Amino acid sequence: MENVKKKAVILLSGGLDSATTLAIATAQGFDGYALSFRYGQRHIVELECAAQIAKTQGVIEHRIVSIDLGAFGGSALTDLNIDVPHTPGATGEIPITYVPARNTIFLSYALAWAEVLGSADIFIGVNALDYSGYPDCRPEFIEAYEKMANLATKASVTGDHKLTIHMPLISLTKAQIIQKGLALGVDYSTTSSCYDPAPDGAACGTCDSCRLRLKGFKEAGTKDPRNYER
Amino acid sequence: MENVKKKAVILLSGGLDSATTLAIATAQGFDGYALSFRYGQRHIVELECAAQIAKTQGVIEHRIVSIDLGAFGGSALTDLNIDVPHTPGATGEIPITYVPARNTIFLSYALAWAEVLGSADIFIGVNALDYSGYPDCRPEFIEAYEKMANLATKASVTGDHKLTIHMPLISLTKAQIIQKGLALGVDYSTTSSCYDPAPDGAACGTCDSCRLRLKGFKEAGTKDPRNYER
Repeated sequence: MENVKKKAVILLSGGLDSATTLAIATAQGFDGYALSFRYGQRHIVELECAAQIAKTQGVIEHRIVSIDLGAFGGSALTDLNIDVPHTPGATGEIPITYVPARNTIFLSYALAWAEVLGSADIFIGVNALDYSGYPDCRPEFIEAYEKMANLATKASVTGDHKLTIHMPLISLTKAQIIQKGLALGVDYSTTSSCYDPAPDGAACGTCDSCRLRLKGFKEAGTKDPRNYER
Repeated sequence: MENVKKKAVILLSGGLDSATTLAIATAQGFDGYALSFRYGQRHIVELECAAQIAKTQGVIEHRIVSIDLGAFGGSALTDLNIDVPHTPGATGEIPITYVPARNTIFLSYALAWAEVLGSADIFIGVNALDYSGYPDCRPEFIEAYEKMANLATKASVTGDHKLTIHMPLISLTKAQIIQKGLALGVDYSTTSSCYDPAPDGAACGTCDSCRLRLKGFKEAGTKDPRNYER
């Protein structure tokens, strides 16, 4: 019998974290099925990055699913009437860039695809830094999601396999994520983390996400290869 | 201070169960926000029914969100290459009409809308009869979903409210659901349950769903007002 690699569905936003997560899944021996979303985000530069990352890292398949998160509004990332902040917000507050139920919805599509593929492994790049701000990046949320997912599918009835939601970045700092990714050969010049990029894709350098990223590269002792406006 | 009614998000497919669920939510004193999906189903008659039901029952708002479940395939309801069966399937098997992760995805959108509305109540019309076949209609699935949802949102961090997922039909037979709905004034002629309706919307009378429905009306001692092909 030939040596068949296990399939994993990897949520790939086109950002630094998900690019690193994909590289980790591949290094662990999984065949990658990358899943991205067109969800009403302000700019599509991150989807162009996702496509580039998927290609460079040699996934078996990359799907971009269109979903309409903007239909409900409530976030600066999907509602053009809400400005993306370019100065730090109050500590302890959930940022206006939080998109209601985004990771819940993303994971639900990943679950559907995993079920059709016969895959028992989903990877998501949530990490300790996001954890402080977004409720759906906390490890207890992902663990509860995994429990639910294991009651949601055919496999949960037939007992064929137990689904695992991997969160390999959860306890890493941004600097550690970058060091891990560089060791695995991730090209961070093709990753986009900015909440408010210029029309040409250049990162603003001042939104929450850019600030976290730049701090991470500094602490990792290396330069961010991404194109910045200033 | 004026008497403000609480908001509830109700998943409204246009079928018998969800029409009854909406009537129950309204009878419990909630303002109804009905949510339907265009998800690649074979026919849109159920969405026309959903719109009619929402109007008749006086919801505050009815939203139809387009999602692409067909992108992943794997079900006779969304994949035109798989035929809808018109004879009973083997007992104990999950029917081919099962759509991977459908209720997980539907509930995730309901969660997003509830969060934006500031609603703490979601209604879903799962019931004991579906329970035997579809994994995501089981009460333990819904309970696990509720636990996860209470870790997913802003309210779970701020402690503003606890989200409840109501499943008022869960322990009812189809006949009991129909009797309850009739008592609440539901017009079942505008509900569509058929998996494989004719182009004019007439129900086939022979798919799993039609057979369950017809049996329910018979046991309830009344005639199904829906238009059937034969």
